[in-house]
Amino acid sequence: MSILRSFLPIVARSNGWRCFSTGVPSDMIAELNKEMESVFGESPSSSPLGSSPSQQPARHSNGAEDSPLVLTHTDSSGQAKMVDVSPKEDSKRVAIASCRVLLGQKVFNLVASNEIAKGDVLTVAKIAGITGAKQTSNLIPLCHNINLSHVRVDLTLNEEDSSVVIEGEATTSGKTGVEMEALTAVAIAGLTVYDMCKAASKDICITDVCLQHKSGGKSGSWSRN
Amino acid sequence: MSILRSFLPIVARSNGWRCFSTGVPSDMIAELNKEMESVFGESPSSSPLGSSPSQQPARHSNGAEDSPLVLTHTDSSGQAKMVDVSPKEDSKRVAIASCRVLLGQKVFNLVASNEIAKGDVLTVAKIAGITGAKQTSNLIPLCHNINLSHVRVDLTLNEEDSSVVIEGEATTSGKTGVEMEALTAVAIAGLTVYDMCKAASKDICITDVCLQHKSGGKSGSWSRN
Amino acid sequence: MSILRSFLPIVARSNGWRCFSTGVPSDMIAELNKEMESVFGESPSSSPLGSSPSQQPARHSNGAEDSPLVLTHTDSSGQAKMVDVSPKEDSKRVAIASCRVLLGQKVFNLVASNEIAKGDVLTVAKIAGITGAKQTSNLIPLCHNINLSHVRVDLTLNEEDSSVVIEGEATTSGKTGVEMEALTAVAIAGLTVYDMCKAASKDICITDVCLQHKSGGKSGSWSRN
Amino acid sequence: MSILRSFLPIVARSNGWRCFSTGVPSDMIAELNKEMESVFGESPSSSPLGSSPSQQPARHSNGAEDSPLVLTHTDSSGQAKMVDVSPKEDSKRVAIASCRVLLGQKVFNLVASNEIAKGDVLTVAKIAGITGAKQTSNLIPLCHNINLSHVRVDLTLNEEDSSVVIEGEATTSGKTGVEMEALTAVAIAGLTVYDMCKAASKDICITDVCLQHKSGGKSGSWSRN
Amino acid sequence: MSILRSFLPIVARSNGWRCFSTGVPSDMIAELNKEMESVFGESPSSSPLGSSPSQQPARHSNGAEDSPLVLTHTDSSGQAKMVDVSPKEDSKRVAIASCRVLLGQKVFNLVASNEIAKGDVLTVAKIAGITGAKQTSNLIPLCHNINLSHVRVDLTLNEEDSSVVIEGEATTSGKTGVEMEALTAVAIAGLTVYDMCKAASKDICITDVCLQHKSGGKSGSWSRN
Amino acid sequence: MSILRSFLPIVARSNGWRCFSTGVPSDMIAELNKEMESVFGESPSSSPLGSSPSQQPARHSNGAEDSPLVLTHTDSSGQAKMVDVSPKEDSKRVAIASCRVLLGQKVFNLVASNEIAKGDVLTVAKIAGITGAKQTSNLIPLCHNINLSHVRVDLTLNEEDSSVVIEGEATTSGKTGVEMEALTAVAIAGLTVYDMCKAASKDICITDVCLQHKSGGKSGSWSRN
Repeated sequence: MSILRSFLPIVARSNGWRCFSTGVPSDMIAELNKEMESVFGESPSSSPLGSSPSQQPARHSNGAEDSPLVLTHTDSSGQAKMVDVSPKEDSKRVAIASCRVLLGQKVFNLVASNEIAKGDVLTVAKIAGITGAKQTSNLIPLCHNINLSHVRVDLTLNEEDSSVVIEGEATTSGKTGVEMEALTAVAIAGLTVYDMCKAASKDICITDVCLQHKSGGKSGSWSRN
Repeated sequence: MSILRSFLPIVARSNGWRCFSTGVPSDMIAELNKEMESVFGESPSSSPLGSSPSQQPARHSNGAEDSPLVLTHTDSSGQAKMVDVSPKEDSKRVAIASCRVLLGQKVFNLVASNEIAKGDVLTVAKIAGITGAKQTSNLIPLCHNINLSHVRVDLTLNEEDSSVVIEGEATTSGKTGVEMEALTAVAIAGLTVYDMCKAASKDICITDVCLQHKSGGKSGSWSRN
Repeated sequence: MSILRSFLPIVARSNGWRCFSTGVPSDMIAELNKEMESVFGESPSSSPLGSSPSQQPARHSNGAEDSPLVLTHTDSSGQAKMVDVSPKEDSKRVAIASCRVLLGQKVFNLVASNEIAKGDVLTVAKIAGITGAKQTSNLIPLCHNINLSHVRVDLTLNEEDSSVVIEGEATTSGKTGVEMEALTAVAIAGLTVYDMCKAASKDICITDVCLQHKSGGKSGSWSRN
Repeated sequence: MSILRSFLPIVARSNGWRCFSTGVPSDMIAELNKEMESVFGESPSSSPLGSSPSQQPARHSNGAEDSPLVLTHTDSSGQAKMVDVSPKEDSKRVAIASCRVLLGQKVFNLVASNEIAKGDVLTVAKIAGITGAKQTSNLIPLCHNINLSHVRVDLTLNEEDSSVVIEGEATTSGKTGVEMEALTAVAIAGLTVYDMCKAASKDICITDVCLQHKSGGKSGSWSRN
Repeated sequence: MSILRSFLPIVARSNGWRCFSTGVPSDMIAELNKEMESVFGESPSSSPLGSSPSQQPARHSNGAEDSPLVLTHTDSSGQAKMVDVSPKEDSKRVAIASCRVLLGQKVFNLVASNEIAKGDVLTVAKIAGITGAKQTSNLIPLCHNINLSHVRVDLTLNEEDSSVVIEGEATTSGKTGVEMEALTAVAIAGLTVYDMCKAASKDICITDVCLQHKSGGKSGSWSRN
Repeated sequence: MSILRSFLPIVARSNGWRCFSTGVPSDMIAELNKEMESVFGESPSSSPLGSSPSQQPARHSNGAEDSPLVLTHTDSSGQAKMVDVSPKEDSKRVAIASCRVLLGQKVFNLVASNEIAKGDVLTVAKIAGITGAKQTSNLIPLCHNINLSHVRVDLTLNEEDSSVVIEGEATTSGKTGVEMEALTAVAIAGLTVYDMCKAASKDICITDVCLQHKSGGKSGSWSRN
């Protein structure tokens, strides 16, 4: 495996990324290529600097096998890639995410009767979720900064498990999806519920932060069954 | 009135928002519906979570009259709605706002002779106003984050009332107006004038922060007469 | 209950906050007062404006019973209270939080073999968690902005449930705890893991975002059993 | 006057800032020196670079009279000075500011009956004011970034002039005052009221943004009489 | 020269900006006009406020010659102009920038063997550069906030001069170029390399921050030869 | 070398960090330990989660030699460490950094005569540098967020090499140094000079971003000779 990894940058450079054919369980190849296809719209632009690692003297001065370490360093380009969305189509994209905040009976009652000392938990959390969605690209390193045409965050008290159910929806008309914006909205709303209630209990848990629905873009619509 | 409000969420859910027909002075209905029309481009997307409050057991377990409180909480969706601008047209939108900072004679003279110890008041405030406009959506919870194609902030000394007159203009080509960006620009510029001068006087006042002109969008052009 | 709530602002004004004696299950009073004590260090400063709601003509012109609505509005001071930490002692405060990101077998293998197309999942997420902790007060409305003396985020692959286990620790020397900073760190790290992997699966879930340990401050140390 | 200004940088360099003795109405000198004293705790640190303008060849190559312009440029150090608060004492500092948002009768009624389509105006604005206070140093160029131990924002409906009265309070325990934080809180809250209501009227005005009270620091307490 | 400058605002007002014909070395005029053309797409919108300096009584009450100072102040509009990009065409725009961080032999070896105590220098710096690019418009006052469709940052170790070579690329589909985003990406990545290594040496220098290539927009493609 | 790296996490876990005794040129050990000492004030707090990698089944299931990759992943704790400054003393800390922006003769003349179309280059850049310093911890991942008691940025035109010389100074009274704040200030100021001038030339270069002086903290004072 470490051998494959040592070679990876070079092979990738010379043959493009459709080259993972060894050291990976065969049942993973199709999936991997499928993912890569969905991630990369085009090959990285060539460098006018001529400082592309694969042409670096520093690179040729040490082979792949004897120094995977330095390789990893002279070519860090595999460490963090923002997806290039320029070739993607503009389209209306919607994502809906959700999470639950388990409050416990006591805190649930305080929230339901609006007697949490810091204020109106659901309203403060709702506003935090909406504003948080707009901060997504400042929080998630490889996330694109986009214009959101709509953000909706709704919080509902669920007596059955003494929880707050949070649902967040983000909409854009652009080249990239808004899953992360919807997920960030519910996560920040959940953290805010926690902050409002933490003086009353330390045993609060935010759980099931996940995507419920998405539509738009090349991959089309998806819903959790 | 409180009864109407208790019922509000339910009615709104079942009949949509065109339902405010009681408890409001009749001369307010038309205006209210007009506002709502301008605010909502479409009905909120239905929830795949099925957690829409109006189907919540928690909701049905308590009537509206005896517990407006819990109602407000199990459905907080009326508390903060970001406008969905997806259905709106892209168009060039311009807004111009203004305010005045009343300095008093003494501080006015210091500013006019550029002898305020912290520096060039008008230039620092101008730059703060331009940069502040770009922060609008991080400051105003339900404001959309948009790309501004232009921001202009001009400050003028007015000897007549010893004030700084600030005018701010924001421009975009998008789906939503830029009134808030223009207003934020002049407000931040005004606060900066205050900060630059506060060592010389505590009796400085920012006043008349208002819109002067807007154009673009469905509602078209408007100017203060 | 709604009656209690209608009266609440007035009672609170006249008697201070130790007044919740009706409409709340008696086993909640002690807890409630305990929470309030932990929240409010001092009574809100009196207003030089003289605009304190309880002296508002607007307030006296309508009683509590017939218009809880307007009451709520002429006194919104119960809606969102930032804790006043001025009277609190400076002390070293540490908080440790954790969460898990359930990847599923397939994505787990891609992460473990570092073949996720967007890059090194654990490292990008770790850095996002550390930087996210520094954004806490910009994300959580009633959170204090504080100086963190240390932030640690560690991610570990857990083959047993195909998850990434994230642990975050925040430290400060100040007047307020850092639970929210530690929780925000792991939540942002978890969202980043999601972002890095989402092209490979939409069925990823962030779960069990909770506090593990805290020390420092008047309430002393606490650890999850 | 323009002559004085041309000389200013040089004189200031050679004699320090206590030199404004000409060209300024004599009743302004005391005030000016008083301001400067309150602003500068110590003389600017000397430059190890040796690039202090007054030793620049570029400087000596052109006199003050014939080229005030270039002078201004080779020495821009008078244009924007952040106050050095290192020599100041830590102390508890409180500031209270206020403003009014004139809504007009129609919008006032909508707000009072909580029927503004975008949501609960006073609560959203209150939260925006609190969060805005924490952004002050990112908005006001020469403002110090400080830790706030408390922020309070209260909004009150005033039927007499159909306005929202906003009062904001900021508290810190540090080396610099919090007037700007309190003023920013009310300004952002006021802008948010505007944003929530703007669909119902364009004729809304934020006015009288001013300081009401301050305490702490060398200059002690001050209240608007 | 100071005379020209005194007149400048007035002349500019009356004749537009194509008026710099005196006091400037003649070989600079063509360049200057060319720059201005590239900067201003249209004349500044006229002010509904009627507060344009050239119509200010305050302005006419004092001539230009005897008070260039007040002039400069009653018209600060020349001090900071954001370019109005509304008339510009949307097009795909790419910019590539680079810089070098000179580490010295000792630190270079520590980085190459990944033994810098704070962690993986190249990866942390790469992520910082990508996230930094998204902050450009918050850092550069007159920079437009735009949506980036791609950001790439690559770091390469260069044994020859013991440096890290950083290359950054930014892409957008919009009305304005992305040179500043590419330059900010490499500058922030360079500062991060410095931060990671500063405990090992204070003699690290970031150098040659410059543009390598740009394409798109009216001015077309450009590459450093 | 790659072998050492494979073992590194384990060795470090068991013996603490004073263990780099192989595979590193011997003249680097003292330096390395010295750096580590300056970086780590205390050993990382033990994890109540018990999820410390060295106890992970996932870890023991694969040895170090045959899978350095997975090792790196199940223990990412070496990838990015924020320094824990809690044990450090509060002290006044000052740092001064500098850089030069090489404009070329033509642009230099435009800046010197203040005829750059976008405005007053030196003043806009100065303000950007001061505000940029306050953003340092949002830009540099492992940088602590601290309160700055002073930021100074001065720009000087240097006719000899047609450059702008930028000097930045940051001051704090705290537990960590301000080198990064001073360096960020001059880098952002330099980028702003570039932005203001880029319409006039693409051949502008920011160079020699380096530290000039620091004082305060355990390591005491340092100046570039």
